[in-house]
Amino acid sequence: MKTRAAVAFEKAKPLEIVEVDLEGPREGEVLVEIKATGICHTDEFTISGADPEGLFPAIMGHEGAGVVVDVGPGVKSLKKGDHVIPLYTPECRECDYCLNPKTNLCQKIRTTQGKGLMPDGTSRFSYKGKMVHHYMGCSTFANHTVLPEIALAKVRSDAPFDKICYIGCGVTTGIGAVINTAKVETGSNCIVFGLGGIGLNVIQGLRLAGANMIVGVDLNNDRKPWGERFGMTHFVNPSEVQGDLVAHLVELTGGGADYTFECIGNVKVMRIALEACHKGWGESIIIGVAGAGQEIATRPFQLVTGRVWRGTAFGGARGRTDVPKIVDWYMNGKIEIDPMITHTLPLERINEAFDLMHEGKSIRSVVVF
Amino acid sequence: MKTRAAVAFEKAKPLEIVEVDLEGPREGEVLVEIKATGICHTDEFTISGADPEGLFPAIMGHEGAGVVVDVGPGVKSLKKGDHVIPLYTPECRECDYCLNPKTNLCQKIRTTQGKGLMPDGTSRFSYKGKMVHHYMGCSTFANHTVLPEIALAKVRSDAPFDKICYIGCGVTTGIGAVINTAKVETGSNCIVFGLGGIGLNVIQGLRLAGANMIVGVDLNNDRKPWGERFGMTHFVNPSEVQGDLVAHLVELTGGGADYTFECIGNVKVMRIALEACHKGWGESIIIGVAGAGQEIATRPFQLVTGRVWRGTAFGGARGRTDVPKIVDWYMNGKIEIDPMITHTLPLERINEAFDLMHEGKSIRSVVVF
Repeated sequence: MKTRAAVAFEKAKPLEIVEVDLEGPREGEVLVEIKATGICHTDEFTISGADPEGLFPAIMGHEGAGVVVDVGPGVKSLKKGDHVIPLYTPECRECDYCLNPKTNLCQKIRTTQGKGLMPDGTSRFSYKGKMVHHYMGCSTFANHTVLPEIALAKVRSDAPFDKICYIGCGVTTGIGAVINTAKVETGSNCIVFGLGGIGLNVIQGLRLAGANMIVGVDLNNDRKPWGERFGMTHFVNPSEVQGDLVAHLVELTGGGADYTFECIGNVKVMRIALEACHKGWGESIIIGVAGAGQEIATRPFQLVTGRVWRGTAFGGARGRTDVPKIVDWYMNGKIEIDPMITHTLPLERINEAFDLMHEGKSIRSVVVF
Repeated sequence: MKTRAAVAFEKAKPLEIVEVDLEGPREGEVLVEIKATGICHTDEFTISGADPEGLFPAIMGHEGAGVVVDVGPGVKSLKKGDHVIPLYTPECRECDYCLNPKTNLCQKIRTTQGKGLMPDGTSRFSYKGKMVHHYMGCSTFANHTVLPEIALAKVRSDAPFDKICYIGCGVTTGIGAVINTAKVETGSNCIVFGLGGIGLNVIQGLRLAGANMIVGVDLNNDRKPWGERFGMTHFVNPSEVQGDLVAHLVELTGGGADYTFECIGNVKVMRIALEACHKGWGESIIIGVAGAGQEIATRPFQLVTGRVWRGTAFGGARGRTDVPKIVDWYMNGKIEIDPMITHTLPLERINEAFDLMHEGKSIRSVVVF
């Protein structure tokens, strides 16, 4: 079949909206009509060429929502008409990782996914007879895409696609980091570095978890009302702090934070986030993706005196199990999404969505088909 | 009173055995006759001058065992004749740290202890009228010493001093890192870097916890039988590994270790220990003390893909609560100490004990009074 897609033909170029060819689903695969997709920094990271594992041409996008159009042989858990959210971290429920309660990093299709291919080692996308890569196993910048059954979360059918697509990455990453990775206890003092599309979701995750202090740190004062909107109790602009930022944050939190979250991808901020943790028990969670080859560093004394350094991917969520729950939370009013989606654009204007991100004007832009 | 002590008058000089003056215990303090003391790398670290916080003159030693000789006003939990182990990490049971189940780092007397003084800001030791510093709140290289009540674990009276002194640091640090900090589950695959006085105790802690693979890593092949003696199942000498050590260890452990322990204090080994952890859930515990100003580094990707970096001090043990239990474990045969104490010397030969350590000839030397 033919479908419309925003294709990244080469790195650091605007996406081109073209009609691509899409093969139907094979064994264990599902054809999905994407109704809406969020625009995430990770897409930009790859499109820009900064991602050393980026492949071109490719159809990017990994934060979508849509409807099942067709299923391949052997697909049992989904049928035509089901509403779904694609999962860049699948959940096969049978690999060593899925069977270990400590991780969500299903490895079932990791190798082929990393090569921009379906599990059988081929692509379903092509343009003018030449193969186009999948991206993060999702390729939600296409109106139709094919995914493995294990990479689709079935969600309730009354939830709006143009909002719940955000649960496919940002919402789950932020809230999940709080709930699944840090396991924040009620009454904790926490610091969130970077009040963008992830950081704000960390903040609302902290509110949900009953945190005490929720300190937001951002260089952009315009983000202060945004943080407060979702539960932030204190705002710190590092450029307005006299002296050492770590010392300031430690004092503000009465000895250091119980949990800190780095939502930027800046290795220097990662160090600050660790060192702003409370001696004895503070834990720092790295969410942001650093540039290729960059390293974090600290003195081991920071760890020996009780701080813990962790990271999280997709908020530690098991997609097929956890994503439907988060959709319920949204529909039941436990969490908010609507105000974070500051811009909604048609596919033809997808490049504008990246401009808005670069300019810091959007929290999240969503493209609808 | 007068007592014999090995005094470090200045850095990087042999200790001198002299008679020092010791004041009696004040409010909340206890006079202890030290019967035996272990010689630990941390003593050497300070004596050598490498410790930027080292103070001179001082009476070093922090791994002792002895008998209560006198108690000051207000002391309730100890009486004359009680057998005790000094605690460089006290347990006041009332500070924010003692009341937080996540840490053992009691802060009650930290400031004065760091200054080589008793909690009231003075020293009990002097020599020819000049003040001599306490060390780590213990100063077990003196035949008699004064400690705060909260820095003494009361232990059973039938346990031999010249063995249980080792529980004052090395044994508890190693076993505690396994049990309290890592909380190693039965069946885990683990790697221990450095098979010295701490590493061997990590190994016997892992045996106690029912670990599956217990891989020991050391450049010294003479340590292989030592590791095996306490439960090591595999030995790796990095100098005999072809290619990358991390890759070798990951392959050996079937994807990486569930837990790794760095018992050397080498920041490069700390990185290897982290990266040899299993993706998704492996945790690395830093036990070794690095040189002043040295830093650990890695790519944040290591953490984002599920590895956890922690440290431990005194094995996460709460001394007054946990040390008596470990003495029981020793007396009941659950753990071994005797074979690790390779040398026992009188105080007059204490400098020989440091020579044995430098030459790698001893696992632990104990000085008896």
